[in-house]
Amino acid sequence: LISQVEAGGEAARDVLRALHPHTGQAHVVGITGAPGAGKSTLILGLTRHLREMDRTVAVVAVDPSSAFTGGALLGDRVRMTALAGDPGVYVRSMATRGQVGGVSRATADVVRVFDGVGYDVVLVETVGAGQLETAVARLVHTTVVVETPGMGDDVQALKAGLLEIADILVVNKSDRPGARQTARMLAAEVEGTTREWRVPVLPVTAVEATGIDAVCTCLGQHRAYLERSGLWVERERGRAKAEFLDALSQALLSRFLTRAGCAQVAGWVERIASREVDVHTLVESLCERGV
Amino acid sequence: LISQVEAGGEAARDVLRALHPHTGQAHVVGITGAPGAGKSTLILGLTRHLREMDRTVAVVAVDPSSAFTGGALLGDRVRMTALAGDPGVYVRSMATRGQVGGVSRATADVVRVFDGVGYDVVLVETVGAGQLETAVARLVHTTVVVETPGMGDDVQALKAGLLEIADILVVNKSDRPGARQTARMLAAEVEGTTREWRVPVLPVTAVEATGIDAVCTCLGQHRAYLERSGLWVERERGRAKAEFLDALSQALLSRFLTRAGCAQVAGWVERIASREVDVHTLVESLCERGV
Repeated sequence: LISQVEAGGEAARDVLRALHPHTGQAHVVGITGAPGAGKSTLILGLTRHLREMDRTVAVVAVDPSSAFTGGALLGDRVRMTALAGDPGVYVRSMATRGQVGGVSRATADVVRVFDGVGYDVVLVETVGAGQLETAVARLVHTTVVVETPGMGDDVQALKAGLLEIADILVVNKSDRPGARQTARMLAAEVEGTTREWRVPVLPVTAVEATGIDAVCTCLGQHRAYLERSGLWVERERGRAKAEFLDALSQALLSRFLTRAGCAQVAGWVERIASREVDVHTLVESLCERGV
Repeated sequence: LISQVEAGGEAARDVLRALHPHTGQAHVVGITGAPGAGKSTLILGLTRHLREMDRTVAVVAVDPSSAFTGGALLGDRVRMTALAGDPGVYVRSMATRGQVGGVSRATADVVRVFDGVGYDVVLVETVGAGQLETAVARLVHTTVVVETPGMGDDVQALKAGLLEIADILVVNKSDRPGARQTARMLAAEVEGTTREWRVPVLPVTAVEATGIDAVCTCLGQHRAYLERSGLWVERERGRAKAEFLDALSQALLSRFLTRAGCAQVAGWVERIASREVDVHTLVESLCERGV
């Protein structure tokens, strides 16, 4: 199903159509942070903990530097294979080349498949470059931002707006010097926000699986908060709207281009490239003529 | 003009419409690399050098960790202000919050303004997270990837696909240990590619302005290569097409939604969110009915 969905086109639409009534149950959790922050190791720990609680887990790695996608050292990859034998875990890394729009749409569709076939939790690993890709962000219920002590990363994260999107803050590598100071600074930072959900700052040492249970507890609390406050339903509606408009504009465009024909489209492009007419003037005249 | 374009809407279209016949002359150069690689300092050096050659320079910073956008240490910012008095230089940092699509479209439009009003060179600073945002990548003629010695960054860059998009590779901080080794490794890496343009690997120490002249020379050579090979014109046509399709699909969507009315659209969204119908089935039926 995943390969079919990733390939796109009619086959992908068939899969998503069939799964649609069964979606909307999974807790979709984004794990984001700088390369080297230990996102993959945290995901490994979370997955093991969730499996002990008998929840099924799907991991979708969008980060090109992810241990899951092959960007990590050998030791990490060996640890990742520890999950391989368990039928309650599925790991998928996404191709991250090509157009951002295409990648994020494919990721959204793959997450939808995991949701539709019944995984309880879907963990989505993205590199935090200050912006979660739109279609991915749309899917995520809870965003975990992974920080590490020292090196001014904290300031960087502030600037990049990562703190703003965090529902849970993890200070990984908390056995290192400066961990408490980083945690204190982050706590002071989120203290100032006026959001109803109080963002917890959790010390974790992912390689030793220390602090993982607290992260899992907070994930459950955040889901309960979303449901209680009506935000879960609201988010569902926002997502439906964005995807509807996305699919609609694609369909309208492709209908228009089919009717116009390749030769006519090439002619329009040439007129723009040669500076005979600008994009907006041409589009307006086409819409007025009702082509 | 820039504020008008950033605000979007009808006023933005008017500006772009008026400037369109004057665009297509500027050399648009992307400067990309990890945070801390020294992109801003390199840009400062390039700008000074280009000014000495009497070329006008616009800088557009899309990277949220850029020294131009305020993500840097005080020392960097002080150095940046060295450019402030020169009317042949214009520095603009883009808001990087919000939807990726919106940010990249706004950036593309701002670059267009600088091109249209006659800047010779437009330097676009983006954080290299493995993917240049689509609309930004579309605008850039030459991509400079900034690397630094050691720390396995080289491997990271490989994984992130940065080498693939590089037209010029800069090894910044080349006064540091391991610089030669990094340069050798990168040179071996690009040696293997079959592209007609041979990607130069240039040692630079941006803080001391060492090696900047070689980068400027290579920028000129790359522009000449693009023009000679017909790639400059081809890229122009590809850009025109992408922008035309983008504007057209937006116009078609907005015409459709206006005709349908808010109440009907809300009803459609509700049917999707409640799992009564899936996105693609609904869109197909709407297109068939020719609403």
